[in-house]
Amino acid sequence: MKREKAELLDGPAGGGGGEGESVNSKVLGLERRVLRRMLTALGEPPLTVVLWDGQQIAPSDGAPVARVHIRDRAMLYRLVSNPDVEFGEGYSTGRIEVEGDLAECLEQVYRALRRGRRGGIKSWLPDRMAQPRRNTLSRARDNIHHHYDIGNDFYRLWLDGQMVYTCAYFPNPEMSLEEAQTAKLDHVSRKLRLQPGERVVEAGCGWGALALHMARHYGVRVTAYNISREQLAYARERARAEGLEDRVEFVEGDYREISGQYDAFVSVGMLEHVGPACYEQLGAVIDRCLTPDGRGLIHTIGRDRPGMMSPWIEKRIFPGAHPPSLGEMMGIFEPVGLSVTDVENLRLHYALTLEHWLERYRAAEERVRKMFDETFTRTWRLYLAGSIAAFNSGDLQLFQVCFYRTGDPNVPWSRDFLYRV
Amino acid sequence: MKREKAELLDGPAGGGGGEGESVNSKVLGLERRVLRRMLTALGEPPLTVVLWDGQQIAPSDGAPVARVHIRDRAMLYRLVSNPDVEFGEGYSTGRIEVEGDLAECLEQVYRALRRGRRGGIKSWLPDRMAQPRRNTLSRARDNIHHHYDIGNDFYRLWLDGQMVYTCAYFPNPEMSLEEAQTAKLDHVSRKLRLQPGERVVEAGCGWGALALHMARHYGVRVTAYNISREQLAYARERARAEGLEDRVEFVEGDYREISGQYDAFVSVGMLEHVGPACYEQLGAVIDRCLTPDGRGLIHTIGRDRPGMMSPWIEKRIFPGAHPPSLGEMMGIFEPVGLSVTDVENLRLHYALTLEHWLERYRAAEERVRKMFDETFTRTWRLYLAGSIAAFNSGDLQLFQVCFYRTGDPNVPWSRDFLYRV
Repeated sequence: MKREKAELLDGPAGGGGGEGESVNSKVLGLERRVLRRMLTALGEPPLTVVLWDGQQIAPSDGAPVARVHIRDRAMLYRLVSNPDVEFGEGYSTGRIEVEGDLAECLEQVYRALRRGRRGGIKSWLPDRMAQPRRNTLSRARDNIHHHYDIGNDFYRLWLDGQMVYTCAYFPNPEMSLEEAQTAKLDHVSRKLRLQPGERVVEAGCGWGALALHMARHYGVRVTAYNISREQLAYARERARAEGLEDRVEFVEGDYREISGQYDAFVSVGMLEHVGPACYEQLGAVIDRCLTPDGRGLIHTIGRDRPGMMSPWIEKRIFPGAHPPSLGEMMGIFEPVGLSVTDVENLRLHYALTLEHWLERYRAAEERVRKMFDETFTRTWRLYLAGSIAAFNSGDLQLFQVCFYRTGDPNVPWSRDFLYRV
Repeated sequence: MKREKAELLDGPAGGGGGEGESVNSKVLGLERRVLRRMLTALGEPPLTVVLWDGQQIAPSDGAPVARVHIRDRAMLYRLVSNPDVEFGEGYSTGRIEVEGDLAECLEQVYRALRRGRRGGIKSWLPDRMAQPRRNTLSRARDNIHHHYDIGNDFYRLWLDGQMVYTCAYFPNPEMSLEEAQTAKLDHVSRKLRLQPGERVVEAGCGWGALALHMARHYGVRVTAYNISREQLAYARERARAEGLEDRVEFVEGDYREISGQYDAFVSVGMLEHVGPACYEQLGAVIDRCLTPDGRGLIHTIGRDRPGMMSPWIEKRIFPGAHPPSLGEMMGIFEPVGLSVTDVENLRLHYALTLEHWLERYRAAEERVRKMFDETFTRTWRLYLAGSIAAFNSGDLQLFQVCFYRTGDPNVPWSRDFLYRV
C-alpha cells in the first residue's frame, strides 16, 4: 500500500518494471521521488526518463521529445546531486544515453529551466553568479591550449575548408557552410569599412581565415595575435602558400601584448576567453592601439543577463570561458571613450552553424574515435548538440558590436551599405 | 613691468584695450589669468574671448572658430565659478554673446572638454557622476509639464507638420525634415515588424505622430500613454480629424500605469525622462505588458559613458532628465529576460534634425519673442544649438534598441528587411 501511495505521489509513470520485491520497490519509490523532484526543479522538461531496470517517468502532460536513459543507480545519484556537471559526465561515459534528437532534447531542458527560474525555482541550482577567475597570461595560455591545441586534423574533420571556428553568417539559410563562413568574413570586413593600405590588428585569429580574407579582398595589412601554437603554425603555412606573407603577420601573443597603432581592431570569438575581470584592460589595449579615426568590431558569444558558463562546459570544453551580457561588455568601451555604433545579435546563425558542424562531426565520429576514444567522441558530440540547444533556446546569444572613438565624425551615416547588393 | 610679465604669462593676446591706468590693468591682469586658467581647464577650445572693455584672449594656436563676448565683470566671475550653468545663464540674458556659428562654437568646447578630461583635468569641473534624483509619479508630471506644456503653438513654429519632437531618420541627408520624420516613423514601425490587427502600446507618445502612423499604415491598434495634457489634447483631436479614433486610444498616464497585453511595446524619446533609478521598474512594466511573442523598441538620447545631464539643461530645459549609457540601459532588459537583438546609433541624424529645427526656430524668433520674451528666445536658441554641438561632438548619442523575449524563435533572421527597397 505504502509503495502505491509513493507511486501516486510521483504522478503518472510509464512501464512498471521492478515491482517484484517490496524492499527494492521502496528504494525505487524513493529514487523516483528524487528524480521527480529534480525534474520539477528543472521546470518539467518534456522528457521521459528511463531507469536502468526499465522503470520510466514520463512528462506529466504532453508528448516527450526524447527518452533519457540512466544506466545505473550511482549515476542517478550523481545526476541528482549535481546535474549541471553530471549530465555531461554521464553522457560522455555512456552511463546516460539519449534516445531521440540530442539537440532538441537539450533545448527543451534549457527552455524548461528558464520557465522554472521565472517561477522562482532557484535554490536547487548551483550559483551561476559566482565570479569567474581572472585569466592571467599563463592561465589564458593553459586554457587556450586545452581547447585549440588538440590537433588541427581533428578540427579539419568537421569545420569548413577555411577552418573558421566561429558563428557563420547565412544571408540565405539554405547556403552551404563554406558560403556562410565566407559571408561572415565579408560581413565583418564590411562593418569595419576597410580601405586598401589600412593596418588592422586582430586579437585571437584562430587558423587565420579572417586575417587572410581581409588582406586578400580588402588590401589591408594585418597583424594577427594568437596564443594557440597549433593554430599559428597552420595560419603561417597558409599565408606562405597563398603568397600573403608580406601583408599578414601572425604573432604569438596575448591581446595584452598587442603593440603598434592600427586603423581597425577586430576580434572574433576571443572575448569569451577574456573574462569580465579583464575587460577594462582590454578596453585600454584597444584605446592604446587605435588611431584617432580607428574603429573596431568584437564578435562574441554572449548572454541576455550575466551568468556563469555551464560548469560542465567550463570543466571539459572551455576552461576560463565567460560569455558576457551586453551590460558586462560595456565595461570594455565605456571607461575609455569608445562609442558603440551598432550591435547585431546573430544567435540563430550560430545555431545553424552548429547544426552544420554537428552533422559533419557525426559523419566523422568513427575517425574521431580512432584519434581519441569513445569518451572524447561523446563529449564533443554533447558539446556541439548542447550548443545548438543553447543558441536556439536563447541561453546563449551572439553579439557583433561595432565601435568608434567618441565623437568621430566619420561614423557610418546608416547601415544600408551593409545590405546593398 | 609687472603687468607686462602677467601678459606674457597669459600667452599671446589680441587687441590691447584698457592699458591706460596701472591699478585697473593689474585687476585686468588677474582677470585674464583667471580666464586663461578656465580656458586651460576647458581643454583650450579654439575661441577668442572678448572682455567688456575690448581686451581679448585669443587661442594659443590655430584660428578661432568664434568670438565669445563677456559683457561685464560680474558675468566673468560667475562664469569662472560655475561655467556649466553660468554660460547658459549669461547667454540667455545677453551678458554673454557669441559672434560666429553658435553650434560650431559649442561643438569645439565639447571636443576640447573631452581632450581636457583625457589629459586628466577634472577637479575644476563639477561632479557629473552624482546620482540623479528618482522621478516619482508626481515629480515626473512636474518635469514633463515644465517642458512639453509651454504651448503647442510654440512647437508648431519650428517642428515638422506632424509635430515629431525626436530624432528624424534621413536615409538621404538631402531630404526634407518632413520626409525624414516620416522615414523615422517607418524605420521604427518596420523594426517592430508590425502585423495588421496587432496591439501596440506606446509609452510617451508626444503629439501622437507615431501612434497615428502605425495605425494608418500598419493596421495596428495602438494604446498611447502620455502625461502631457497639451500633447494629449492635440493628439486626440488629430485622431478624430483623421478618423482613427477607433484604432488609437490616447491615455493620460505614466509608463508605470500601463495595463493590458500587447504584441509590441514602443517608446520614442521618453526614456530620457525616466532616470536609471526606475529602469528596473520600466523593465518589469514591459515584461508584464508584452505577450509571449511580443517585441519592442526603445529610442532614446544616450551617452557613451554614464554621466549627468548638463546642469544648465537640467535647470532650464529638462528637469529630471538623464540620457543613459548602453550599460545603464541594460538595467531595463537584463533583469527580466528580454533579449537585445539590435542596437543602432543615429547620433549624426539627431544633429541634422536639430539643424533643421534651429534654422526654422531662428526664422521664427520674432514670433517667439512676442509669445514669451528675449530671455526665453535666447534660452531655446542656445538649447537647440548646444544640442547640435552635443550630438556632433559625441557628447550625446541616439540609440534605437530592439528587443524580444529571451529564446523567441521568431527574432528577425537578419536586418536586410530594413534596407530592402
